[in-house]
Amino acid sequence: MLERFKVKDDHAVRVGPDALRETVAGIFEKVDVPTEDARLAADVLVTADVRGVDSHGVSNMLRSYVNGYNRGEINPRPQWRVVRQTPAAATIDSDRGLGIIIAPKAMELAMDKADDTGIGMVTISNGRHLGMASYHAMMALQRDMIGTCMTSAPPRMVPTFGAEPRLGTNPIAVAAPAKEEPPFVYDAATTVVAQNKIVLARRLEAMIPPGWLADAAGTPILDESDGKADGGLLPVGSTREAGSHKGYGLACVVDIMCGLLSDGSFGMFPGRPNFNHMVSAYKIEAFTDTNEFKEAMDRFLRTLRETPPAPGADRVLFPGLAEAEAQRDRQANGIPLHDEVVTWIRDLCGELGVGCQV
Amino acid sequence: MLERFKVKDDHAVRVGPDALRETVAGIFEKVDVPTEDARLAADVLVTADVRGVDSHGVSNMLRSYVNGYNRGEINPRPQWRVVRQTPAAATIDSDRGLGIIIAPKAMELAMDKADDTGIGMVTISNGRHLGMASYHAMMALQRDMIGTCMTSAPPRMVPTFGAEPRLGTNPIAVAAPAKEEPPFVYDAATTVVAQNKIVLARRLEAMIPPGWLADAAGTPILDESDGKADGGLLPVGSTREAGSHKGYGLACVVDIMCGLLSDGSFGMFPGRPNFNHMVSAYKIEAFTDTNEFKEAMDRFLRTLRETPPAPGADRVLFPGLAEAEAQRDRQANGIPLHDEVVTWIRDLCGELGVGCQV
Repeated sequence: MLERFKVKDDHAVRVGPDALRETVAGIFEKVDVPTEDARLAADVLVTADVRGVDSHGVSNMLRSYVNGYNRGEINPRPQWRVVRQTPAAATIDSDRGLGIIIAPKAMELAMDKADDTGIGMVTISNGRHLGMASYHAMMALQRDMIGTCMTSAPPRMVPTFGAEPRLGTNPIAVAAPAKEEPPFVYDAATTVVAQNKIVLARRLEAMIPPGWLADAAGTPILDESDGKADGGLLPVGSTREAGSHKGYGLACVVDIMCGLLSDGSFGMFPGRPNFNHMVSAYKIEAFTDTNEFKEAMDRFLRTLRETPPAPGADRVLFPGLAEAEAQRDRQANGIPLHDEVVTWIRDLCGELGVGCQV
Repeated sequence: MLERFKVKDDHAVRVGPDALRETVAGIFEKVDVPTEDARLAADVLVTADVRGVDSHGVSNMLRSYVNGYNRGEINPRPQWRVVRQTPAAATIDSDRGLGIIIAPKAMELAMDKADDTGIGMVTISNGRHLGMASYHAMMALQRDMIGTCMTSAPPRMVPTFGAEPRLGTNPIAVAAPAKEEPPFVYDAATTVVAQNKIVLARRLEAMIPPGWLADAAGTPILDESDGKADGGLLPVGSTREAGSHKGYGLACVVDIMCGLLSDGSFGMFPGRPNFNHMVSAYKIEAFTDTNEFKEAMDRFLRTLRETPPAPGADRVLFPGLAEAEAQRDRQANGIPLHDEVVTWIRDLCGELGVGCQV
């Protein structure tokens, strides 16, 4: 599905996840990130690649992170701190630290709170890019909790009936454990597609499908287009009649939970350069028996997976199933990286004096 | 917008909200609901009408509730109880009580927990219809909290790529207070439209817009249709390419938070006749200064409201704005009810011996 947006295998080099993780950690260290944080950052990026979420992996994100550090926009050694907290809630100022490093620490705090009270939620201000939101949500799985994560991003989404972008792609991630089935992992922008899909489509000179973009006046583009008349991303639903106010409304929820509820800012806030986040954890045992929950999740996910397919479809997926399958494949056979990406990593390693294992 | 689905004013009788509330409470009492619960139930229904959410008001819902009580499917005097709880979390068995009566009680519990810990969340099993989800979420506004509410409904949504319904319309509601602007109130099904819209369209013999329904084989219907080939409701996004996996995934989240996390059931669970719910409350002061939050909300909502409109649109709304405007109008001028509905209420009052004020 959407095969035209996949990296073509004939340009791909398979790279082992451990080798990639080591190499990327070395690069983060060279831009002054402390060793432990560098390893964490590398793990978040490579986990995205391993799970087939290339849009948030090494090839798409590492370059912009390195540039951000080099330009001083991201703080490699942030003095992040908890500015307010109660037994179940906290707010963190991340001091311009990269989200892929701060969010896991915030999630640890949320999970500790959930251990004590049943629920923990942490909002995060003054942040930088979050990476794959589901990485942070999935941390909860190891502790028999449901995890969520959101990020309020700079404006790209045109509100329903609006002519100009006012909200970010504002993704929502939710992870819940099962027993034998792969975990349920939902992770999606509240726009029809993530911004990276548009960038990728342009790079591959692919046509943009109907309903993804607004034109410069704000009118939804409902035919295939070359993407040149890009007035912003449409909310999920594409048009009012087909429910775009739902994607728009959910994007607002993300701005409220991440931004308004941390430092009172939002995607359009004047002068706010980047991202605010939110993570939360729900301890299953606080609501019901954990083992029974996981067995029920197996039944639920199988019910979805075994739905008879519609004409033209091979099978029905549930959120996280394709990613778990990619994980099995890529963990064993390596991550397919475009040869240009491999060359770029090797050059960067040479430049920075990092031992390159890819 | 979507004017063809509105009650035509030339068939409408304006009824005062207080008179309607009294009358409806009297009807609930006659089907053996205790006085206080009957008043609460009437308030939930009439609040939907006052806010212009006719799909969940008296005209669309009262009849099915009365039938449910008469057939013994809804318990008028449920012995609902908290089956498990921690400082921030609880699970309630509602003993087949109507959701519009049990959910407000659960929300009170969630808010008390949020007062203590910062957050409160309550899952509700063994439930019946929830009414307008945002009623329960909006209860949080009075206590300077953000409120949410969801309900896991019987199967009507066809999963992306699937040929048969597997999930309910599974709506999500989120309410957050502002200072001078009307509160932010999001309340929407995760299907493109609520089931009631299809019922209403059939009653009015209106055509169904593209992207709302699947045909009997599960293929999305992408032209206008008469709605006779109804194989189920499509998730928000309508097709995989336009993001239907997002509506589908969010509907799964609702099943998990309401059903799996209460009694381990879900919409498709064999033998589960009806609904499970979830309510939660987030105390703003636990995360940030409440007054600053509300002032920031004003700025945020104005930024949205003042977005230049796209061609053909009058203005940009934010979630809850149109409902607040309806509330101002209907509180002053009465609720427009179709004359057939008024006749039905009068007849029912006569039958049950209820003093009719409409």
